[in-house]
Amino acid sequence: MTGNHPTSVTIIGLGSMGAALAEAFVKAGHPTTVWNRTAAKAAPLIAMGANHAEAIEDAVTASPLVITCLTTFEDTRLALEPAVTSLPGRAVVTLNSGSPAGARQMATWVNGHGARFLAGAVKNVPSAVGARDTLLYYSGDETVFEEFETTLKVLGGDTVHLGGGADLAALYEMAVGAILLPALVGFFQGAAAVQAHGLEAQSMVRFAGKWLDMIKSLLPVYAEEIDSGDYANAVSSVNLFLAGAAHDDDLATEANVDTTWLVPLYDLLRRAAEAGHGDHSISALTEVLRKSAQA
Amino acid sequence: MTGNHPTSVTIIGLGSMGAALAEAFVKAGHPTTVWNRTAAKAAPLIAMGANHAEAIEDAVTASPLVITCLTTFEDTRLALEPAVTSLPGRAVVTLNSGSPAGARQMATWVNGHGARFLAGAVKNVPSAVGARDTLLYYSGDETVFEEFETTLKVLGGDTVHLGGGADLAALYEMAVGAILLPALVGFFQGAAAVQAHGLEAQSMVRFAGKWLDMIKSLLPVYAEEIDSGDYANAVSSVNLFLAGAAHDDDLATEANVDTTWLVPLYDLLRRAAEAGHGDHSISALTEVLRKSAQA
Repeated sequence: MTGNHPTSVTIIGLGSMGAALAEAFVKAGHPTTVWNRTAAKAAPLIAMGANHAEAIEDAVTASPLVITCLTTFEDTRLALEPAVTSLPGRAVVTLNSGSPAGARQMATWVNGHGARFLAGAVKNVPSAVGARDTLLYYSGDETVFEEFETTLKVLGGDTVHLGGGADLAALYEMAVGAILLPALVGFFQGAAAVQAHGLEAQSMVRFAGKWLDMIKSLLPVYAEEIDSGDYANAVSSVNLFLAGAAHDDDLATEANVDTTWLVPLYDLLRRAAEAGHGDHSISALTEVLRKSAQA
Repeated sequence: MTGNHPTSVTIIGLGSMGAALAEAFVKAGHPTTVWNRTAAKAAPLIAMGANHAEAIEDAVTASPLVITCLTTFEDTRLALEPAVTSLPGRAVVTLNSGSPAGARQMATWVNGHGARFLAGAVKNVPSAVGARDTLLYYSGDETVFEEFETTLKVLGGDTVHLGGGADLAALYEMAVGAILLPALVGFFQGAAAVQAHGLEAQSMVRFAGKWLDMIKSLLPVYAEEIDSGDYANAVSSVNLFLAGAAHDDDLATEANVDTTWLVPLYDLLRRAAEAGHGDHSISALTEVLRKSAQA
């Protein structure tokens, strides 16, 4: 905040997420400047009250807080390159996916141009931006987070600073994000299976939702097992999952579904059992997933 | 219910889930008879007030409602075999994993011995048995469900009859269950990654939990796309996931984690893109998972 006036914000990159971010700031009364390589994408936001910067230099100069929402860190540097002389003294916040190494490299680049850097991630879909419960996490320069925390909370009420390392947000982004595709493919496989029986995918949504709740309730238990390295007190053992794996051939046959993507998961189960984890908690798979655990 | 007296119930198979079922009935005041191949497992339940049947025949004769909680349908038939002359007129309810074909075969066997059959699944962990929100679903003979619904609800307040086909519960069990192992391995991989950075797995639990909430919120959208076959309106496209897949090599390198189990998932993404689904919703993977979609 500058006095009682809402902080001016610049949003660079107006894909579906970037546009949602800009819209949230406009609606919250922040002077909002938008820039996109394809200028046409700015039109709906200008209609709402955003300021359009034709040149990236003007976009950067417009605000003390510059939030980028491009695809990669490299895209971000390429976009900002013509504006580097305007960077000193500003805060750059990236909201894109990328590796921890990429985030560290970005921090070096931003700092090298005299600006402070915070790397973040929006842990939800564009339509959830601005909601009280929406999670965004950031890591990097804590002075940026402290100075702009109120402003950043416009994007989601559950806004967290993970720590001073610029790479922490990318690390958690990867760690947490790893659940998404496998969980979805599991759901899609199930949908194909119920459809093969003439039923609608919609009919399994409620059950799958409760199943996800159940999985969520198990995470603290598994995390404790993983942190302690004590897998002996198994709610569900590796062997129990191995026994269940035997049914997937039936599923493939009965429901005309391709289950071959599950084969490496069963290999992990077998490797865990061979390593003596058969009667241990399924969370012992963590030990097998470490590369150092491999021959 | 028989008059105002709680229905007598027999529980066959006292693993952790079977014991939880028996305990719930004892606590709810139902005369509860328990049987297990290894009789010692009955001891804690007898201490709580359950009746112990030494012979399976006595267990079956004790109650109009016989609930089995063994590992497979085959195990269940083997256990019940010595008691087949006591089956006529009773209701047999199975709570085990198995294929839809296995459930149909079990129905034929139970009906052939003069008993009615309901196949079910407990969609939660043993400690959740008896809770108001715990989901159990059943399929098969609807007269059994209607007659014993109040009794079955002792095991979980969210108790559902899916339909008359004995195989429906097994079908949904497989369809919904397919999410579990892949989602957990995603979480374990993430846990290994944060640990490789000297952080605790516990530190990602809250974020992973919110991520599962987000996934849950997407399921109705995906189900509608799958049911309609219209994947054009993508919240997250196949190409977006393909772009994200590029970062996993970074994860493998940076966090010392084995990501090879994800390779077949990326193959699915590539096959979907090749089939023209690149800009379509990620739910279009369902089309690629159908065996008929394969060359």
